[in-house]
Amino acid sequence: MPPNTPLLDKVASPADTRGFNASELKQLADELRAEMIDVVSQTGGHFGAGLGVVELTVALHHVYQTPDDILIWDVGHQAYPHKILTGRRDRIRTLRQGGGLSGFTKRSESEYDPFGAAHAATSISAALGFCAARDAKGRDNRVVAVIGDGSMSAGMAYEAMNNACETTGQLTVILNDNDMSIAPPVGGMSAYMARLVSGGGYQSLRHLGKSMARVLPKPLQEAARKAEEYARGMVTGGTFFEELGFYYVGPIDGHDMDALVPILKNAREIKDRPVLVHVVTQKGKGYAPAESAADKLHAVVKFDVVTGQQAKSTAPAPPQYTKVFAQELIKHARLDPKIVAINAAMPSGTGLDLFGKEFPERTFDVGIAEQHAVTFAAGLAADGMKPFCAIYSTFLQRGYDQVVHDVAIQRLPVRFAMDRAGLVGADGPTHAGSFDIGFMGSLPGMILMAPADEAELAHAVATAVAIDDRPSAFRYPRGEGTGVAIPDLAAPLEIGKGRIVREGTTVAILSLGTRLAESLKAAELLGARGFSVTVADARFAKPLDIELLLRLAREHEALVTVEEGSMGGFGAFVLQALAEHGALDRGLKVRTLVLPDIFQDHDKPEIMYAQAGLDAEGIVRGALNAMGVDNVSAAGAGRRA
Amino acid sequence: MPPNTPLLDKVASPADTRGFNASELKQLADELRAEMIDVVSQTGGHFGAGLGVVELTVALHHVYQTPDDILIWDVGHQAYPHKILTGRRDRIRTLRQGGGLSGFTKRSESEYDPFGAAHAATSISAALGFCAARDAKGRDNRVVAVIGDGSMSAGMAYEAMNNACETTGQLTVILNDNDMSIAPPVGGMSAYMARLVSGGGYQSLRHLGKSMARVLPKPLQEAARKAEEYARGMVTGGTFFEELGFYYVGPIDGHDMDALVPILKNAREIKDRPVLVHVVTQKGKGYAPAESAADKLHAVVKFDVVTGQQAKSTAPAPPQYTKVFAQELIKHARLDPKIVAINAAMPSGTGLDLFGKEFPERTFDVGIAEQHAVTFAAGLAADGMKPFCAIYSTFLQRGYDQVVHDVAIQRLPVRFAMDRAGLVGADGPTHAGSFDIGFMGSLPGMILMAPADEAELAHAVATAVAIDDRPSAFRYPRGEGTGVAIPDLAAPLEIGKGRIVREGTTVAILSLGTRLAESLKAAELLGARGFSVTVADARFAKPLDIELLLRLAREHEALVTVEEGSMGGFGAFVLQALAEHGALDRGLKVRTLVLPDIFQDHDKPEIMYAQAGLDAEGIVRGALNAMGVDNVSAAGAGRRA
Repeated sequence: MPPNTPLLDKVASPADTRGFNASELKQLADELRAEMIDVVSQTGGHFGAGLGVVELTVALHHVYQTPDDILIWDVGHQAYPHKILTGRRDRIRTLRQGGGLSGFTKRSESEYDPFGAAHAATSISAALGFCAARDAKGRDNRVVAVIGDGSMSAGMAYEAMNNACETTGQLTVILNDNDMSIAPPVGGMSAYMARLVSGGGYQSLRHLGKSMARVLPKPLQEAARKAEEYARGMVTGGTFFEELGFYYVGPIDGHDMDALVPILKNAREIKDRPVLVHVVTQKGKGYAPAESAADKLHAVVKFDVVTGQQAKSTAPAPPQYTKVFAQELIKHARLDPKIVAINAAMPSGTGLDLFGKEFPERTFDVGIAEQHAVTFAAGLAADGMKPFCAIYSTFLQRGYDQVVHDVAIQRLPVRFAMDRAGLVGADGPTHAGSFDIGFMGSLPGMILMAPADEAELAHAVATAVAIDDRPSAFRYPRGEGTGVAIPDLAAPLEIGKGRIVREGTTVAILSLGTRLAESLKAAELLGARGFSVTVADARFAKPLDIELLLRLAREHEALVTVEEGSMGGFGAFVLQALAEHGALDRGLKVRTLVLPDIFQDHDKPEIMYAQAGLDAEGIVRGALNAMGVDNVSAAGAGRRA
Repeated sequence: MPPNTPLLDKVASPADTRGFNASELKQLADELRAEMIDVVSQTGGHFGAGLGVVELTVALHHVYQTPDDILIWDVGHQAYPHKILTGRRDRIRTLRQGGGLSGFTKRSESEYDPFGAAHAATSISAALGFCAARDAKGRDNRVVAVIGDGSMSAGMAYEAMNNACETTGQLTVILNDNDMSIAPPVGGMSAYMARLVSGGGYQSLRHLGKSMARVLPKPLQEAARKAEEYARGMVTGGTFFEELGFYYVGPIDGHDMDALVPILKNAREIKDRPVLVHVVTQKGKGYAPAESAADKLHAVVKFDVVTGQQAKSTAPAPPQYTKVFAQELIKHARLDPKIVAINAAMPSGTGLDLFGKEFPERTFDVGIAEQHAVTFAAGLAADGMKPFCAIYSTFLQRGYDQVVHDVAIQRLPVRFAMDRAGLVGADGPTHAGSFDIGFMGSLPGMILMAPADEAELAHAVATAVAIDDRPSAFRYPRGEGTGVAIPDLAAPLEIGKGRIVREGTTVAILSLGTRLAESLKAAELLGARGFSVTVADARFAKPLDIELLLRLAREHEALVTVEEGSMGGFGAFVLQALAEHGALDRGLKVRTLVLPDIFQDHDKPEIMYAQAGLDAEGIVRGALNAMGVDNVSAAGAGRRA
């Protein structure tokens, strides 16, 4: 039964809240929270972060003249209340479903989303771009970036803050400090923010008003200002941000509308330099099951509003790849004390929370800091350790230069465990791991594996442990394995050797990674149509198994490669190798099936695979296309759909 | 005539300096500086930075027990004195020459280079890796990272500093503050460091000794420590670093051996937390022509030691691509006020110093901060501006996730000007732009151009100006153009259309980028051997000119693609497109000539191109190989050499 929301029902857009008084704003926040709880109980999705910013969302849209004032949310996990307030309430129950609203902010969805997000720590950089554009055009709209304390470990946030002093001001950065991103934050900055909050208590309105009044007129004399800053720094500790050129205000209680609204009103008027408002919120606020959960119900599936009980999956499922990776790494770490593991603010997402329980001294969570994670791992490798750097494929893009410059050029044996490789379903294109085969596989000296199932993943981990003279990487997808048995202690694979899984004579399907199961299904379907099909598992994208490639090319009429990755990846490498060996000279009906050359919107995985032409039907189409046979039943549903 | 260096002559390794007294250390520094001036006058190379750290280099090797203590230089521009002191004096005059010493630190060169460098801001991350490895092994060697103030604008340095508090200490970070990287630094951090230096004057030894003595025993009570920090912060201002968990010492005069040695000795003994020693140096110190030059002679060609006069090139040369890019962008910016330009601490390297002279308000140097640069540009584009983001190919790797997540997924019209694409000669593999065709060309919606000469570059700039509905990029190499005339105002190219440059019937060479001239030479050579050769200029790596590809495939016996980039790039895209269109089904003698699958060491460009098989001879070999003809004259010099 939907909650009673009389005030929220009258708000079609933020403009409708501008005339609200304090009491109405509080009521609106309460109704918004109730609505959000009801929505997410039905849709699932990111939950705790949104609950924490309900009052902040209302206050921001009340004070700032959105959409003329630019409001940029970082990451976007917390943007569901924002979506409800900004004309998307009628579609909010389509969240994260195919054709429905994105789980993140998205420019194409609304003029109230001037800049989309999903990866952390981009908001201040984007906001500075909007400030510069505003100044170039001679406008005077305000720009607001909201950023979580977890994102403050990211170098990108620092780079942006370091450049904020170059703006003309009219920029408000809201530091949304809930002492948590997905996991508890790490590092000196986090400790510093904790000291800020525990140090002086929340600033009184009177104190803040007095302090802020001073900067509203012309800037003070430099000496006086500096003295005042340091004095204030000793109480509230904000000198760190002040040194970078911000006017620091806070900490303030982010659930206290009576504090938020007047302070934001003041912040909006400060013109001589950027303002950082340090707002303390509670992740999961206002919903008891979330407040009491260790992860503050960061992300949930459908749940019962009264009990907070989340829906359970019905059948026992095969283990997730993430967990298999962690368990296998633990097995090897018990035997080899040089194995250490690094993650970037994703201990549970990468499975390294399990590793960390057994080997706390050998586990490093560096925060949202992929650049550092990679070079830190390189340093460990340079001194003889065996580092496993576990970063999602999409986030490894953040550390790409470090992979090239610090790892590959120095040929250091860092092992990259690239989770979430390929399509990711409801999280959509920002989280898809589409490009890693190309950007890792093109690096000289790199060994790149893509296991076909969880047993193969176990072998890949063992292989990476054994590779001690150069970098290596292995990619595996989101979700569950196939249920195949996993060896007690998997043996290393022979480097650069694939395997034949099914023997045939006419069509060869060469699969890299977990599309092997669909490739085998495709072989059955093709067999039913009279084709004799070989299926091979490449195991390695680099180095390639040239012998296998040449044999497949020589012994078959057609060769179809299959991978869950973009153009310029495995299929491309295969073609370049075949060309170099003259294997295309006399003709080969060859097709490379890859992810389509679009950013696929979020949807159910099976629908996305079908769109991509990477399910069994799509592979059949590819093979029939290669063989010059029309596939009438699948007409019009080509892989470029 | 070489300088007189009696003391330096006795130093075979740093161990030989450990018994030196203060007077000897000063003399050694003087001799080392004289030697370095003499060396670089003959070799050319990076100069100003090395002059600035002569005393620091001597003091570090005197105090720290290198190579057991780990010393990591950031960037490596400043490492020539270090190389002279660490057993490489006999080879120092081979700097940056083929087969000679690298211009940067390099692991394979010396045990005194535990971690190589060339890109900025990696040293602290690597140092933390060495600390963690040391702790895991139960050793107690010290780790030192030297980092310049210019690198402090990089998020990576911040990420590392944020994690430094997690170490057990025995880590010294030397902040080498010369108020300059290649260009003057920018941002709030730079202003902050300037305040530190100008604020309290150099700390007296007595003050420092007293202050440091307090942390040598057990940590003080938290309250007392904090009070002392803030008090000290108000004098010397180091609270920024203290808040991140460092013990801050400084600023101290980096040319005063009497200050450096005792302070480093103290710093080496601090065990409870990492120490940051803020050392102020003067870039170009001790060589009058360098001290007085605006760029402090950051990098030089051979010069006369007495006058500082650098050797001049003899003949008037065609304009450099960098300059052509800048001049063309200026032409368009005069007509279109929405054009703005962004660079990351490379105003002269990218040519944007010229743009900035005419359009200071429309030029943004964000410091060494590529992540921010890209997303800042995305913000500008999101608000309707036309940003050109000029970043070297190799450094764009630092902003890759931002290109994917903030630009490409949002389909924002940011224009990437990728200078130094391909091989770069003396700077070697760390600066080569090898991977951008693959990592940019695999992104959906991206338009990727590679002009063949400076007139084509002018057209590429015009095309990028005109592309206003999606991201675009164009790559061009280090060095000079071909001397071809440049139009007054180049017109935009038709998107995704190549051109036939030379008509033939048997062999087609499809070139992307500036290897076109060598492709034409190869065509002549092949013509002399009786082959009728077509040469085409692809212009676009994405989207491909499918019509042209199919025509070349259909009308020729062999097709050879040529690009100055790695596997998984243009040639790979061409093969995937030909396969998709069935153009390989009936046989095509196709070869993709790319950079070899190794990191090529620094050398003269022409030698590197020959090694890569991307000069005319190499292209001829590729074509003959495709045609099944042995090329006796070039036997054994295949492109995998």
